Amino acid sequence: MREAHVDDGAQTLTQLTTPAVVIDLDKVERNIRRHQDYADRHGLKLRPHIKTHKLPQIAAMQLRAGAIGVTCQKVSEAEAMVAGTPEIKDVLITYNIIGAEKLDRLAALANKVRLSVVADNETVVAGLSYRFASETRPLAVLVECDTGAHRCGVATPEDAAALAQVIAKSPGLTFGGLMTYPPPDGAAAVQAFMTRAKSLIEARGIVVPVITSGGTPSMAKAGDAPVTTEYRAGTYVYNDRSLVARGACGWDDCALTVLATVVSVPAPNRAIIDAGSKALTSDLLGLPDYGHILGRDDIRIDQLSEEHGRLVSEGPIGLKVGDRVRIVPNHACVVSNLVDQVYVTAADGTNAAGKTWDVWPVVARGRIS
Amino acid sequence: MREAHVDDGAQTLTQLTTPAVVIDLDKVERNIRRHQDYADRHGLKLRPHIKTHKLPQIAAMQLRAGAIGVTCQKVSEAEAMVAGTPEIKDVLITYNIIGAEKLDRLAALANKVRLSVVADNETVVAGLSYRFASETRPLAVLVECDTGAHRCGVATPEDAAALAQVIAKSPGLTFGGLMTYPPPDGAAAVQAFMTRAKSLIEARGIVVPVITSGGTPSMAKAGDAPVTTEYRAGTYVYNDRSLVARGACGWDDCALTVLATVVSVPAPNRAIIDAGSKALTSDLLGLPDYGHILGRDDIRIDQLSEEHGRLVSEGPIGLKVGDRVRIVPNHACVVSNLVDQVYVTAADGTNAAGKTWDVWPVVARGRIS
Repeated sequence: MREAHVDDGAQTLTQLTTPAVVIDLDKVERNIRRHQDYADRHGLKLRPHIKTHKLPQIAAMQLRAGAIGVTCQKVSEAEAMVAGTPEIKDVLITYNIIGAEKLDRLAALANKVRLSVVADNETVVAGLSYRFASETRPLAVLVECDTGAHRCGVATPEDAAALAQVIAKSPGLTFGGLMTYPPPDGAAAVQAFMTRAKSLIEARGIVVPVITSGGTPSMAKAGDAPVTTEYRAGTYVYNDRSLVARGACGWDDCALTVLATVVSVPAPNRAIIDAGSKALTSDLLGLPDYGHILGRDDIRIDQLSEEHGRLVSEGPIGLKVGDRVRIVPNHACVVSNLVDQVYVTAADGTNAAGKTWDVWPVVARGRIS
Repeated sequence: MREAHVDDGAQTLTQLTTPAVVIDLDKVERNIRRHQDYADRHGLKLRPHIKTHKLPQIAAMQLRAGAIGVTCQKVSEAEAMVAGTPEIKDVLITYNIIGAEKLDRLAALANKVRLSVVADNETVVAGLSYRFASETRPLAVLVECDTGAHRCGVATPEDAAALAQVIAKSPGLTFGGLMTYPPPDGAAAVQAFMTRAKSLIEARGIVVPVITSGGTPSMAKAGDAPVTTEYRAGTYVYNDRSLVARGACGWDDCALTVLATVVSVPAPNRAIIDAGSKALTSDLLGLPDYGHILGRDDIRIDQLSEEHGRLVSEGPIGLKVGDRVRIVPNHACVVSNLVDQVYVTAADGTNAAGKTWDVWPVVARGRIS
C-alpha cells in the first residue's frame, strides 16, 4: 500500500506521499565521479562504505565508476548487499566479528565474494581462526589501528605489528594489512602511525598488502597520507548538511533530501511538518538544529518529536498547510537507515512536472548484527 | 537468516545474536497494570499510544487490561496495527491528515474500526470533510489544542470553539471532542484551557464527548486535570532512562533493554560494544550520554557512531571482549522503530539459563506516512 503509485512512471514529486526520502541520481553520479577522480589522481583505490545508501544499485554505480570493492560495517549488511547485486565481488567488513553464529554467516559469505575483515585484539583473531581453519580459502584479516579517533583500534604501531604476526601465524587466516578510521584532519597521524607500523611488520618478514583509511570529511586530505593504498568513504555519495557545514560541498551537491508536508501553521512564525525524528533522526553532528530547508535560510528546524518537525522563523514563516518543503538532513546515512524505501529521481525541483521517479527498497536498512 | 534460532525455544539470552532488543513481558504486564489502575482510580479512560512498542501483541495486552482503544500517530501505523490483531477495534490518530492518498487509506480504515482523528486548522477539516462526505458513517474529528507544548494545536479556547463549530457543520464529520499533548507538568494548563473550551463549545449547543490528554511523564498528575476524560500514554509500557531520570520509575521497571557484546577493549578504561546509534539512537532527551548499562553505574556510554558504542569509566572498566551488557536506552520508543524484530522473554537475567524467548516482528516500525 505504501507503493501505491509505483506503477505510474508519470508521477511527480508533488504527488509523493510524505514524508519521503528522495534521491537525485544525477547528483549521486556527479559525487561518485568527483571522488573517484580524486582517488585516481592520488593513486588511491576507492572502497566506498555502503552505510550511506544501503542500496545495491548505488554500490554498482560506484563499482562501475572504478571502485575496487565495497566496505560494510556488519555481516548482515554485507549479506544484504551481496544478495542484492552480482556486481559486488569484493567486500571488506571493518568490524571485530564475534560469536559462532556470525562466524558461520561470515564463512558462507566468504564462499560468495572476496572477503576481508578487521581485528584489533587476539580474542577476535582466535575466533576467526577457529572458524576458518577448516575452510579451503584463508580469510584476510587487517589490523585496525587507532590513529586518534579513540574508538576501536590497537593503540601503537608496535601493537599493530604484534597483532599482524599473530594473524599471520593463525590457521585459516592471512594478514590483510592495516585499517584505520581517523579523526577529521587525521592525515598526518595516519601517515606517521602507518609508516612506522608498516616498517615494523615488514621487519618481521610480513608483507603489508593494504593500508586503508576512511571518512568523507577527511578525504579531501587523503593524499596527505601517501602511505595509504585504499580509501573508504561513505557520505560523499549523498553529502549532507554536516558536510556543507564543513565546507566539503554545497547544497547543490546534496543528493538525498527529505520531502515533507506542512501540516499545521499554528503561529505566524511557526509551522509543523510531517517529518520528525523517525525521518530525520536526532543526529546533530555538532549542528545547532535538525536540518536545512532548501531555499529557506531563514527557517530553523528547532525541535523534532517522532512524527513532527517544528519550523521557526524570525519573521513571518510564509508557509501554509499543505505546502511541501525539501530538507537536507544533518546526517544522510542515518536517514537511509530509517526508511524501507527511497524515491529515486533525476528531477531536481519540487514541482518538476513531468519528471519521473522510481522506488528502491533499502535492502541493507536495519542490518545491525 | 536473522531468525536462525527462532525454532529453538530452549535458547537463552546469552545465545542471542547481538545487538538485540529484548522485552521482558513480566515487566510490561506490571507496567500496564499499574497505569491502568491509576487511570481507573481517577476515572480516566486509557487509550495507550502504540508508538512505544509498535506491536499488536502488546496493544492486545493493554486492551485486555482495560484500555478503551489505541492511539496511533500516522495512518500507516494504524493500518499495520489493525492488520495485526482483531482485538484493536477503536483507533484515534492524533495527527493532521492531509492529501488524497492518505485520506483514501483513512476511509478504508474507518470501515474496519471505530476511527477518530484530530485537526487544528480548517484546511485539514476541509480535506477530511471532502473525503468523508460520501461515506456512510461520519468521521469523528477532535480539535487539537496547544496547552503549552507549542507543537501543533489551536492557540486559545476561543479558536478551539470556532474550529469545533466548523467540524460540527462539515458534511461527513462529527465533532469528536478536544485533544492535547501537554508539556510535562501541564495538568493545570490543561484543566484551564479545556474547561474554558468545553464551556464555549457547549454554549454553541455542541456536545464535547471526549477530552483527551497524554504523555507518560505527565501521567502521574493526570488526575490534577479532572476535566480530562481520556488519557494517551505510550512510554509507560516499557519505561526508559529518561523516565528513570524524571523519577517516574526505577531500573527494575524498564522492560526494554538492548543486549550488546563487547567487541574491543582498546584501553583500560574504554570498551566498545556492537550497539551504536542504529540500535540506541542519538536521542538524548536532556540526558548527558546515550544509555545506562544495567549493574554498572560507573560506566558512561559517551559516544555513539552508527555501529559502535563507546563505554568509558573512571577506574578500570573490568570488561573483556565477548562480554555482554544490557542497556536501558534513553528513549524506548525510538529504539522500537529501528529494529525489524524484538526478542520477547519473561526471563530477567543475562544468563538465565533455561529461560525461553520468542521473536516478534515490529510490524508498525518505520510507518511514517
